[in-house]
Amino acid sequence: MAGSFRAERVVLVRAQVEVVGIGAGDPGHVTVAAVDALRRADVVFFLDKPGEARELSDLREAILATHVPGGGYRVVRAEDPPRDRAADGYADAVVDWRVRRADVCERLIAEHLGEGEVGAFLVWGDPALYDSIIAVVEDVRSRGATEFDVRVIPGVSSVSALAARHATTLNQVAGAVQITTGRRLAAGWPQDADDVVVMLDARNAFLEHLDEPGATIHWGAYVGTEDEILIAGPLAEVAERIVETRERARAEKGWIMDTYLLRRTR
Amino acid sequence: MAGSFRAERVVLVRAQVEVVGIGAGDPGHVTVAAVDALRRADVVFFLDKPGEARELSDLREAILATHVPGGGYRVVRAEDPPRDRAADGYADAVVDWRVRRADVCERLIAEHLGEGEVGAFLVWGDPALYDSIIAVVEDVRSRGATEFDVRVIPGVSSVSALAARHATTLNQVAGAVQITTGRRLAAGWPQDADDVVVMLDARNAFLEHLDEPGATIHWGAYVGTEDEILIAGPLAEVAERIVETRERARAEKGWIMDTYLLRRTR
Repeated sequence: MAGSFRAERVVLVRAQVEVVGIGAGDPGHVTVAAVDALRRADVVFFLDKPGEARELSDLREAILATHVPGGGYRVVRAEDPPRDRAADGYADAVVDWRVRRADVCERLIAEHLGEGEVGAFLVWGDPALYDSIIAVVEDVRSRGATEFDVRVIPGVSSVSALAARHATTLNQVAGAVQITTGRRLAAGWPQDADDVVVMLDARNAFLEHLDEPGATIHWGAYVGTEDEILIAGPLAEVAERIVETRERARAEKGWIMDTYLLRRTR
Repeated sequence: MAGSFRAERVVLVRAQVEVVGIGAGDPGHVTVAAVDALRRADVVFFLDKPGEARELSDLREAILATHVPGGGYRVVRAEDPPRDRAADGYADAVVDWRVRRADVCERLIAEHLGEGEVGAFLVWGDPALYDSIIAVVEDVRSRGATEFDVRVIPGVSSVSALAARHATTLNQVAGAVQITTGRRLAAGWPQDADDVVVMLDARNAFLEHLDEPGATIHWGAYVGTEDEILIAGPLAEVAERIVETRERARAEKGWIMDTYLLRRTR
């Protein structure tokens, strides 16, 4: 069903699509502009990731209900197409997945967003970081079968939320910070940055850097939610505790959402 | 005056200090948690940068007035000590400046924050990025003459605001993004990141990279305010226009606040 839709003719939906960053879990991290956009929305689109934790999806709905207590919007759900994990290249698989995701979004917009209406896609954190919806919406628009304007409302990223909870900065004086993936960190500490934030890491890539002199880590899981766990300290000292805590938390809840900042001092 | 203060005895101010990110200029980018914190504040501390544009300071006050229309807080102003630009090393000068800034903050807290009160420091963007107040407040606390708890409220960074206004992402699929300074970018494109955000650049460091194949730039000044200017395109094509626009805007307004994202495609 998903993945096969293409709008067959030009459907004149001169509508407004809002891509709304809702922060990384703490309902207080939603901005005033995001609240305004949600209150103006005629339709709220939920793209559920396949196998997404029910709890995470509930949390998103709770954030919406908190800030738009009066309701007044239609909710349209669709399931994100699954990624093909067996594909040859990671990047290729992601590109193919984006096309299928665009099919889903095009269908949502064409079928559910009326002329002059406002539709909102809710995005965890900040839509600009490790999320494809901005690119997907642009793809849909460039296909030309639906017509709409796009506005992005930035959000508090999980990176900013992590730093705030640890009351630390992301960069050292006059230094750089790199935001990257576990896969890339496992291949080496970035040459030109002493501070590294890792957002997607299924394999504890920080373990590759236990020998980095003076390295520290600020780690957080479920940051901003009731289940928040924070661990910080010299990397070599706390790494094992983080690995164990991660495993236990994942086993107990069935899912984990975590981030960390690695720092070396010059 | 500023810079000479040290609390002489332990002043028991078991108070709360809130470091509040207020976004990068758009009053809508203030979070609900930041609004709550500002409404709870007994004292709001304004640290005016020496020579800071009056307009920027007015904008900060307007944001506060918009979200706390009832007032009810005391405003205490102090001037940030100027940096010693003639010092030998940039990093040394910054460290020395931080000590003097801690002197100023310690005085503000000791003299103006009563027991059990809440004091708020307002920070543009996200306090974790290129701002020293988190470290300064920690320094003040470690001196031991004043006692208070610290909470940081993250904000929408100027980086996220820039990306949103250009409706682009900060990273490419599975790629990394580096946030850095103009000084560092002038020394070379970071080796491990195809996307680079430059936050402090007085000298158009992007001009050093006109030959980078396929490089694009997304530039923005006064992002989120009425005076916002956005330019995006292939770097070699739009670089000159950005240089000219920057100069004209700086001359007209007397100050500039700008950021850009440089991207090379793989």
